Amino acid sequence: MRPDFSSIPLIRRGITPNIDRSGSNLLRTCDHFDLESCEHLDYSAGLPPFLRGPYPSMYAERPWTIRQYAGFSTAEESNAFYLSAIAAGQCGISVAFDLPTHRGYDSDHSLVHGDVGQAGVAIDSIEDMHILFNHISLADMSVSMTMNGAVLPIMAFFIVAAQESGVMPQQLRGTIQNDILKEFMVRNTYIYPPQPSMRITGDIIQWCTENMPRFNPVSVSGYHMHEAGAPAAMELAYTLANGLEYVRTAIDRGLDIDSFAPRISFFFGIGMNYFIELSKLRAARILWARLIKPFEPKNPKSMALRMHCQTSGYSLTAQDPRNNIARTTLEALSAVCGQTQSLHTNALDEALALPSADTSRIARNTQLILQEETELTRAIDPWGGSYVVEYLTHTLTHHAWSYIQEIESIGGMTKAIASGLPKMRIEEEAAVKQANIDQGKEIIVGINSFQSKSSSEIRLLRVDNREVLANQSKRLSHLKQSRDSSKVEQALEHLRKCASQDNANLLDVALIAAKERATLGEISAALESVFGRYHAQHEPITGVYSATMETDECTVKAQSLSDEFAKLTGRRPRILIAKIGLDGHDRGARVIATAFADLGFDVDIGPLFQTPEDVARQAIENDVHITGISSLAGAHRTLIPELMNIFQRDGRSDIKVVVGGIIPNEDYPLLYHSGVVSIFGPGTVIAEAAQKIINQLLDHVSHP
Amino acid sequence: MRPDFSSIPLIRRGITPNIDRSGSNLLRTCDHFDLESCEHLDYSAGLPPFLRGPYPSMYAERPWTIRQYAGFSTAEESNAFYLSAIAAGQCGISVAFDLPTHRGYDSDHSLVHGDVGQAGVAIDSIEDMHILFNHISLADMSVSMTMNGAVLPIMAFFIVAAQESGVMPQQLRGTIQNDILKEFMVRNTYIYPPQPSMRITGDIIQWCTENMPRFNPVSVSGYHMHEAGAPAAMELAYTLANGLEYVRTAIDRGLDIDSFAPRISFFFGIGMNYFIELSKLRAARILWARLIKPFEPKNPKSMALRMHCQTSGYSLTAQDPRNNIARTTLEALSAVCGQTQSLHTNALDEALALPSADTSRIARNTQLILQEETELTRAIDPWGGSYVVEYLTHTLTHHAWSYIQEIESIGGMTKAIASGLPKMRIEEEAAVKQANIDQGKEIIVGINSFQSKSSSEIRLLRVDNREVLANQSKRLSHLKQSRDSSKVEQALEHLRKCASQDNANLLDVALIAAKERATLGEISAALESVFGRYHAQHEPITGVYSATMETDECTVKAQSLSDEFAKLTGRRPRILIAKIGLDGHDRGARVIATAFADLGFDVDIGPLFQTPEDVARQAIENDVHITGISSLAGAHRTLIPELMNIFQRDGRSDIKVVVGGIIPNEDYPLLYHSGVVSIFGPGTVIAEAAQKIINQLLDHVSHP
Repeated sequence: MRPDFSSIPLIRRGITPNIDRSGSNLLRTCDHFDLESCEHLDYSAGLPPFLRGPYPSMYAERPWTIRQYAGFSTAEESNAFYLSAIAAGQCGISVAFDLPTHRGYDSDHSLVHGDVGQAGVAIDSIEDMHILFNHISLADMSVSMTMNGAVLPIMAFFIVAAQESGVMPQQLRGTIQNDILKEFMVRNTYIYPPQPSMRITGDIIQWCTENMPRFNPVSVSGYHMHEAGAPAAMELAYTLANGLEYVRTAIDRGLDIDSFAPRISFFFGIGMNYFIELSKLRAARILWARLIKPFEPKNPKSMALRMHCQTSGYSLTAQDPRNNIARTTLEALSAVCGQTQSLHTNALDEALALPSADTSRIARNTQLILQEETELTRAIDPWGGSYVVEYLTHTLTHHAWSYIQEIESIGGMTKAIASGLPKMRIEEEAAVKQANIDQGKEIIVGINSFQSKSSSEIRLLRVDNREVLANQSKRLSHLKQSRDSSKVEQALEHLRKCASQDNANLLDVALIAAKERATLGEISAALESVFGRYHAQHEPITGVYSATMETDECTVKAQSLSDEFAKLTGRRPRILIAKIGLDGHDRGARVIATAFADLGFDVDIGPLFQTPEDVARQAIENDVHITGISSLAGAHRTLIPELMNIFQRDGRSDIKVVVGGIIPNEDYPLLYHSGVVSIFGPGTVIAEAAQKIINQLLDHVSHP
Repeated sequence: MRPDFSSIPLIRRGITPNIDRSGSNLLRTCDHFDLESCEHLDYSAGLPPFLRGPYPSMYAERPWTIRQYAGFSTAEESNAFYLSAIAAGQCGISVAFDLPTHRGYDSDHSLVHGDVGQAGVAIDSIEDMHILFNHISLADMSVSMTMNGAVLPIMAFFIVAAQESGVMPQQLRGTIQNDILKEFMVRNTYIYPPQPSMRITGDIIQWCTENMPRFNPVSVSGYHMHEAGAPAAMELAYTLANGLEYVRTAIDRGLDIDSFAPRISFFFGIGMNYFIELSKLRAARILWARLIKPFEPKNPKSMALRMHCQTSGYSLTAQDPRNNIARTTLEALSAVCGQTQSLHTNALDEALALPSADTSRIARNTQLILQEETELTRAIDPWGGSYVVEYLTHTLTHHAWSYIQEIESIGGMTKAIASGLPKMRIEEEAAVKQANIDQGKEIIVGINSFQSKSSSEIRLLRVDNREVLANQSKRLSHLKQSRDSSKVEQALEHLRKCASQDNANLLDVALIAAKERATLGEISAALESVFGRYHAQHEPITGVYSATMETDECTVKAQSLSDEFAKLTGRRPRILIAKIGLDGHDRGARVIATAFADLGFDVDIGPLFQTPEDVARQAIENDVHITGISSLAGAHRTLIPELMNIFQRDGRSDIKVVVGGIIPNEDYPLLYHSGVVSIFGPGTVIAEAAQKIINQLLDHVSHP
């Protein structure tokens, strides 16, 4: 059994970012990581270092919480969905918000119409929050909210809505994600720059610690790193390093470690590498206990890592989607064997669209089957003692530890993120993985081997964003007519003032604004007026894809085609890789950019969160041959036809537009009709796509 | 972790069969089973007692064989199916034969028309065998054949067809099931009585040992016990005890243990009890090594148990069939973690019909995903060392050992089967399990909890038996015209003669008949003329279902309804539980019989393999109120309308007919139209079905 730690050595191929290593090694005392005290504690479930689980009796007493992440369209529709899921065996709610909500825009904001209600539910005000939890007792139901950028208005709406329905903050159970660091690293649904964002995170942690003892004020999330391409040890290390930053933030505010640490929760992704993934969860517990110990907690629970897991969306395929049930089942079992506290299982159509009620039921049933039909819940840490898994747990622990030490040597995660190191490492891994898949070194059944011509149709969930937008706009205008505008303005002014000073907890102030019916967009704008809005710019890495693909025939062919094009036209083929709308998932876009650069293209990579107008302007100014749009959150149906119209209006219909990402088959005609020349779904071999694109360009050169 | 050995103590509730325990305890030397020598041999993969696997490097060098069991309709159609499955990643063939073939009837036999081509492929002669393997090189492809009763003609066709295509017996790889003992115990596709059947088994083992060194001449099968209701330790014990009988049979013929033991293979079912099932496979290897050791093999491979596994069909549901993908995935992983040598994964529609090409692909992909995407193959016995699994392995080993000792104390499995003990034990477990499910002590998602109203339609495979029959009849009549009839008659006469004496290997003689183009029916009939045809008769057990259901409201209601009926009419409700056609799967029928008896019905249980005429006669002679037909193999569409016509012809349309088993939804109208009053699919609570039936009878009493 050779563990696959393809990321050793830490600095691969000599690519090093420009890191200021003057930061103190905060963990110097832990340099020599003595695992002796953690190993061979075979009966340690419920005791530090919690290798075998955070609770003494684990699932034997209470199985993991089946917590399916869901939300779409309006609060009414999402509420109906939750109620039926609860009736069918789900035990906790996990709210998915739409991208305008994440980015702090009301639904009627002029920039966001393509994304309203698409990838989650649109929440503009406390009125929407009331509707979202209609008929659900917040005193009894644990509610998880995946919110980071707009965490202040969302928490305020949640708390006030509960109060208005008679439930006090101290009764509320659940989790707010509130993990802003990984947003800057991989997920990109931040609003403000890092420093004020960290202040907000700290305010939430502090407020919850003081007022919501049953609520987890931060869910430190490795999931998005996992999905962005981080291998297990890296996901583990960076997640825990983020957690450590939050602990320090709270300690800096004078909070006692035991007052908040027991309520920090974690969130991991679970991929297909079965033994590694379950070992990762065991290693996470050991490492967290080790990291917290120097803070000298009195309560052992401060050292116990509790987690939520989600099966990997990245591991699923759009082809033959029922194969995804087997994948998700294996990942779910790995998470359960790793002794997770709650779990989301992805639906089989997740690589095509948001899950429908039908596929959500099957995904939920997978967990019910695990809990009810297998007797899995009767064992505590079933893999305890296994030579293979104990070895992998040990190895992962040590490997992650060296990543953590590297981050610490830079001065902790905030500084490391500013240096670009973690993002670069993850992107490098993603590019290598893509290259391995493209040349068949890694097999994905139905994609690069065992392809099937037949595939059964599934009915996908479609959200009509115009309808959602109309509904939300109507409610917003009604809200604005019925509230006391002067009180709203007063609350927002108060918010601006407190934001510009350091002496108030912003959640306290946001609560007042929420009570007065200020909207999410208004609260966010008030803060933005002080903090500003953050714009990230990262150059793609180069050399990684081609280094891995060196001898690949298809790669060589693509490279020679791009040379041929350069000889014929005097310019290399130039492509703008653009994200449009509010969708910040850029693994695909960045891997494509890296690979295309390596295949001999001139690559421009656009900023995130562009309007069609922004994208067209950049494409025309740079005089690119091709614009490649990556779309994963459903806005393509609105925004790509708009983009095509702008090119036409400006007389640049010669710029070829290609689209990649999650595009349901049934949207292909719409996109082709609007003038898109190629659509590349998940599973595309990049070098093949590049060849196709250059051939289309060459056709145009010979028959202009 | 409390292991669930609900079958301890061995003799439950004092129900003991009439056993002649005068047989010697053949294993007396092993009375004190010293496990010390088997445990803590942690690195023993490839070494006795093979706890960790039969080969030193296991999947790291070669993963398990993906061997999907398939066959339906004609040899042409099955051949096309195999070819496309091989192209899509399958590595071995496993032939499913139709029931007439199993029972030794040609397709044109007057008794079998309803079953032709339904549950497997119809093979009447060597010509069909040639077509079945068209374009498949028998020198390279491993072929498994699930054949027991008609093993002589099938092996003869296989060997001669290979020879005629240039492949010699010594080149052939694969497995013949040839496990007749479990047919008498649970599966019921025997033809002749036990003694001549065992002679045939021995002839096959001997012939293969002497002529087919790469072929497994017996696959000792626990799968059917598993499916009939045997818990893990029982399946384990009875399977190994059967294996022991075959070893003794071979030894009695003077074969050297090392000449045949390395080629004995095993076949287990894998259910949902995750840890128990994988531990069962580990325990099987230890026990087999222990059982073979007293025969003093020189070659350690003689002690190595190699196995095929199949996920449990019984564990699947007709409701929401995509749930079955998760179930099958979990079972497959359990088998793989138990280090099986080959595996069949059931298709999601297995509880509804034979798998279609579409669902077969998904089932096969489940295995490909396990092999290619999970890195599972890199670990040898991954559960080695795990406290839970090592404990369960140990416990199962000892528990199975006491069952084996009980069988040995009766004088071995042949005598035990004659006593009825193993069948009774298994039926008792099946009845208890059914009672546990009926009262919700055991949960099945979508059946007795978390029911869903919605379910997506799947397109089922339908076999038109009239078409198959026409095709086979045509080929048979052509065959009979083109062969040399006198040579055929001479070969059959030779077969009859050898059968009546003991001095020839019947496979040698069958080979001559096959070469001369004698049909499967002719060869079987020749043997039947000497051996006779076996007719089993077993009374259902009683008291088990009601003992478990004692306080169940629904049970009490059903009992009081049947009392009410008795008071009103002077007779208890009387039901004939009948199997129709060649389908021998009688778990369902026998559990129903047991339960109905316990619910206050007078129960007649019909013999197996009845024609509609037989069933009608028995129903009318016994003047039953209801006839319940159990159908699992697809013949219902032909035979039930025939039965209804006979009742009508004989003026007994008052006898109500109900149907249970595997009945696709789309067949409901056909059956209702023919006069069936109720159809009970998988997942029916028996006491509820009983209430419904009595209420229908009571309706008739009040409104005759």
